[in-house]
Amino acid sequence: MTYKIGLLGLGTVGGGVAQVLLDSEKRHPLLRWLSIAAVGVKDVSKPRPITLPAGILTTDLEAIVRHPDIDIVVEVLGGLEPARSLILTAIAQGKHIVTANKAVIARYGNEIFTAANAAGVYVMLEAAVAGGIPVIQPMKQSLGGNRIHTLTGILNGTTNYILTRMQQEKGEFDSILADAQRLGYAEADPSTDIDGLDAADKIAILASLAFNGRIKLDQVHCEGIRGVTAVDIAYAEKLGFVIKLLAIAHRDAHRGSDSLDVRVHPTLVPLDHPLAGVNGVYNAVLLEGEPLGQVMFYGPGAGAGPTASAVVADLINIAALLPMGKVNHPLLTCSHRHYCTIAPITQVMSRFYARLLAQDHPGVLGKLGTCFGNHGVSLESLVQIGVKENLAEIVVVTHQVREGEFRQAMKEIEHLHGVDHIPTVLRVLA
Amino acid sequence: MTYKIGLLGLGTVGGGVAQVLLDSEKRHPLLRWLSIAAVGVKDVSKPRPITLPAGILTTDLEAIVRHPDIDIVVEVLGGLEPARSLILTAIAQGKHIVTANKAVIARYGNEIFTAANAAGVYVMLEAAVAGGIPVIQPMKQSLGGNRIHTLTGILNGTTNYILTRMQQEKGEFDSILADAQRLGYAEADPSTDIDGLDAADKIAILASLAFNGRIKLDQVHCEGIRGVTAVDIAYAEKLGFVIKLLAIAHRDAHRGSDSLDVRVHPTLVPLDHPLAGVNGVYNAVLLEGEPLGQVMFYGPGAGAGPTASAVVADLINIAALLPMGKVNHPLLTCSHRHYCTIAPITQVMSRFYARLLAQDHPGVLGKLGTCFGNHGVSLESLVQIGVKENLAEIVVVTHQVREGEFRQAMKEIEHLHGVDHIPTVLRVLA
Repeated sequence: MTYKIGLLGLGTVGGGVAQVLLDSEKRHPLLRWLSIAAVGVKDVSKPRPITLPAGILTTDLEAIVRHPDIDIVVEVLGGLEPARSLILTAIAQGKHIVTANKAVIARYGNEIFTAANAAGVYVMLEAAVAGGIPVIQPMKQSLGGNRIHTLTGILNGTTNYILTRMQQEKGEFDSILADAQRLGYAEADPSTDIDGLDAADKIAILASLAFNGRIKLDQVHCEGIRGVTAVDIAYAEKLGFVIKLLAIAHRDAHRGSDSLDVRVHPTLVPLDHPLAGVNGVYNAVLLEGEPLGQVMFYGPGAGAGPTASAVVADLINIAALLPMGKVNHPLLTCSHRHYCTIAPITQVMSRFYARLLAQDHPGVLGKLGTCFGNHGVSLESLVQIGVKENLAEIVVVTHQVREGEFRQAMKEIEHLHGVDHIPTVLRVLA
Repeated sequence: MTYKIGLLGLGTVGGGVAQVLLDSEKRHPLLRWLSIAAVGVKDVSKPRPITLPAGILTTDLEAIVRHPDIDIVVEVLGGLEPARSLILTAIAQGKHIVTANKAVIARYGNEIFTAANAAGVYVMLEAAVAGGIPVIQPMKQSLGGNRIHTLTGILNGTTNYILTRMQQEKGEFDSILADAQRLGYAEADPSTDIDGLDAADKIAILASLAFNGRIKLDQVHCEGIRGVTAVDIAYAEKLGFVIKLLAIAHRDAHRGSDSLDVRVHPTLVPLDHPLAGVNGVYNAVLLEGEPLGQVMFYGPGAGAGPTASAVVADLINIAALLPMGKVNHPLLTCSHRHYCTIAPITQVMSRFYARLLAQDHPGVLGKLGTCFGNHGVSLESLVQIGVKENLAEIVVVTHQVREGEFRQAMKEIEHLHGVDHIPTVLRVLA
C-alpha cells in the first residue's frame, strides 16, 4: 500500500521534507506507505539541497495537482498565488492537502475549508504555525476537554531573534536588524516579520482553532517592533521585564462570551513568566483554559528541519486514515461556520508601559498623576532617575485599564504644559 | 449517538473527569456523544466533590467492566490491584480503556497492550504521564518524522515543588518536605515521589514510545532527592546551575543504536536551559531529535483539572473513531514486540558534580587532580573558598566522562590521605 505525494516547492522546507521522506529508516513505520511521485518547482536548473530520483522534478505544478495517481499534495511554495489556486484545484480533484502556508490559510481559510469539506478531503497545517512545535494537532486532539480563554504566543523567529540580541547585547534595533539580514535571520524586505504581519496570520489561525470560529484577518490589531529601543529594553529589565513580540487571543468572559480580542504587539513580559525565557529563533505557544490551567509548547519556529517535521507529521496522520476509506475524522476537519466577533482594541483591558520626556519643572509629576487618575489609570510603577539636558525621563507601568481610557489619558498628557513628548508606549502582560 | 463510560474511581481525578463530562457546554462538541453510565467507588458513603445523577454510583467495580452497554472504561483508581485486573477484564469484554495509572502501565504494559491488540481495543494513557500536558498524543501523532535521540523530563511535581522551595528559600530538605506534606504536595509516605519511583514509571512509558520498544522497569536507574542539601543548591547556583530531579532516556548512536540509557536522578541544570525555569508543581518534557531539534512541553503535572483534561482528551480521541466501526488507527495502538536494550549505568557518559571535604594539608588538591587525571576525568570547574574547622570544602564539576571511570576515581579519592569524606555526588546535564 503506497500513497503518492505531490510536493509543490523544493526550497528550504520542501528540501527538508524530501530529505525525511527519502531517508525514512528509524522514523515512523508509516512513512513506508508514502512515496514522492512528483516535485514541482519554478526553475529546474536551480541547484537544490537534495538529489531526487530521476523523472520526478517538473515545472508543471498544475499537472501535479491534477494527476490522478497523486493522493496528497504538499504545498510548500509559500506566497499567495499560485499556492491558493493550486490548493483549490487539488481539493477539487479529491486530493488531501498538507501546507505550511500561514498567509494563504489566514486569508483564504474560509474558501479552502469549505471546498475541502465539500470534497471530503483533509487540509492539514501543522507547519503553518510555530514551525516544528506540535501545536495544531494538540489543540485539535488533546485539549478538547477545556474551555480555552487565552492563547499567548511568540510566533515569529525573526523578531524574537532581534529582541533577544537587543536584550543581551544592549544593542539598537537598526544595527541588529542589519546583522540579522546578513546572517539570514531576516529577509531583505523584513516587513512581514518586523511589522508583525506574519505573527498576525498565525494568531488568526490559532484563535480560529481555540475559539471555534473564523477570524477576519483585518480585524487583528497588529503592531511590530520598529518602535522598541535599547532604552526601553533597559528600563523594562530594571522593572523586572523582558520585551517580546506577543500574539494574543483572549476571550473575556466579562465582555460577552463571544467577543474576542486578537492582537500582535511588543509587550513587557515579567521575568518569571514562562514566555520570558523563550529566546532567539525559538517560538512558544502558551494556552490557558479550564480545567487544565496553563500549558506551553516551545521549540524552533522555523527552518528546514523543524518545518519538515511538522509537514511529515501531517502526512503520517493522513496516511493513518487513508486505509479506512472515505471516512471523516472529526478531529482533523474544520467545520467552522460563523465568524468570531472581535472587540475593537479600545475595549481591550491591558497594562501599559510609557516613557515620556518632560521639562524639569515643579508640578509635572503632579499633573501627570492627576491626568492618569482622571482616566482611571492606576500606576504600578514610576521611575524617574535624574535629569539630562533639562529633560526628565519618566517611565510608568500601569495596572489593568481599558485601552480607550488609557489612550485618552496619553492624549491629554502629550499636551500638558511641561511634557516634551512621549517616545514609547508598549503593552505589559497582565 | 451516545457512547457510555464506566468511570472507576471518584477521587481527585475521577471527580475532575466527571465534572468536565457533566458540564460539557463550550467544550469540544464531541463530548455530547459521551455519557457517564456508571461510577465505581470503594465507599459510597464517602463525601464526594461532585453530585452525580441518581443510580450511577456503585461499589460493584466488576459489574462495570462487564456491563454490556459500557463502551469505554476510565480507570482512575490508582494502585496496582484491583486496577490491573479490572483493566484486563474490561479489555477482554471488548471495552476501550482510558487510564491515568502510570504504575500499572509501567509494570504490566506488556500484558495489557498484548491483550488490547488481540481484542481490538484502544488503551489510552495521556493522563499517566505529565498530568495535563499533552505529551503522549503528540509523541504518537506529531513527531513521527523524527529520529528522537533524547527525552529529558521533570515528571514529578512533589520533588520539583520541594527543590524549587529549597532553591528560593535556601531551606533544608527535611523541613520543606514536612511543609509539603502539611500542604498536600507530598504524601504521608512520600517515598514513591521522593525516591524517584514515580518519575521512573513515567520515563519508562515515554522511553517506550520514543524508542519503539518495551522497557523493563527494573532496568531504569533510579535515585531520588533525599541527598540534595541546601549547601549543594547554593554551590550549584554559584556555578550557574539549578538542581532538578530529571528523568532521562537517551539513545547513544556511538554505543550501538539499540542501546538506551534510562534513568532518574537529581541533576545540575544550567540556568539558561529550558528546563531550568520549570518550577513548583509544574512538569516539562523536552524531546530532541532529527530533524526537529529541541521541543518542550510544559504545564501542570498533576491535580484534578489537569489530569481530567488529559483523560477527556483520550475520551474524545476514542469517540472520534468509534463511528467508523472496528477500525485500527495505527497511531493510537501500541505494537511493540521487543524489549529495548538498556545500557548499565556504568556505561553512561555524563558530567558530574562532587562536593568533598578534605583536611587543610598541602598537596591535597594536587592528589585530587592527579587522581581525576588518571581516570580520564577532565574538570570544568573547581571551587574551594576558605577553610572551616580545618576542613576545606572542595566542589568540582567535570566534563563528560563514562560513569564507571568516574566512580573508580571517586573510590580512590575517598581513600586518599587527606580526604575526609565525600558528602555529595550529583550528575550535571551535558
